Amino acid sequence: MKPLYDDSNIFAKILRGELPCHKVYEDEKTLAFMDIMPVATGHVLVIPKCQAVELSDLPLEYATAVIATAQKVMTAQRQVLNTQAIMQMQLNHADAGQSVFHYHMHLVPAHFSTIAKHETLTVDADTLAKLAKQLAAAIA
Amino acid sequence: MKPLYDDSNIFAKILRGELPCHKVYEDEKTLAFMDIMPVATGHVLVIPKCQAVELSDLPLEYATAVIATAQKVMTAQRQVLNTQAIMQMQLNHADAGQSVFHYHMHLVPAHFSTIAKHETLTVDADTLAKLAKQLAAAIA
Repeated sequence: MKPLYDDSNIFAKILRGELPCHKVYEDEKTLAFMDIMPVATGHVLVIPKCQAVELSDLPLEYATAVIATAQKVMTAQRQVLNTQAIMQMQLNHADAGQSVFHYHMHLVPAHFSTIAKHETLTVDADTLAKLAKQLAAAIA
Repeated sequence: MKPLYDDSNIFAKILRGELPCHKVYEDEKTLAFMDIMPVATGHVLVIPKCQAVELSDLPLEYATAVIATAQKVMTAQRQVLNTQAIMQMQLNHADAGQSVFHYHMHLVPAHFSTIAKHETLTVDADTLAKLAKQLAAAIA
């Protein structure tokens, strides 16, 4: 049974240009941008440009595109943030901790135990914008 | 710079049949089996049948196959374990917590905070074998 997609979620709004984001990379099928509630500095989200709630209903062609984008982003993260550690996480269903119901892959430049802290960094828009610019430049 | 693959890792040995595993699913490009140090009951790993250390050096055709297998496995996990929560995680580099240097995707039927506990369940081989059989049956 496929989960029902509600296009009023914030990532759908970002894709439609109704909400801003600190863009890191974009292509025909994906968008990568800074998580505004990062669990570590340089936390990026990759989303597909299709209506998918989670992994179970993500079309394979978009899954492939998300992976290709993630490979670009993680290379940039390693370069800009001077770390090798990249935790890739993706939550399915509210019971797992998913809070936005548009498929999104987390790329967190940190040890996986970082997410154990349940903290969010306080990051201002300028810092995020600067990081997004650095990452975007490292991909280009 | 691509990470160097060392084929003496335990997942390479499982793929060569030199070590056993509690198999859940297998196809031409992937293998799914029970994690013997699960962070939650029903924790499954999906690995590609190619030499890839992590996400950065995983060929896209294998990435797509891993995702397709993950979709099958998570559907089975939800059915067998009677939960909707599936955390998907994949660690890149020892600094992120990666301990086996063959790309592997974790599918953990639990809330993401579960991994915060840094515990491993004590699970005997019989229990894992039984779960593997149930999951395999749910996929077939």
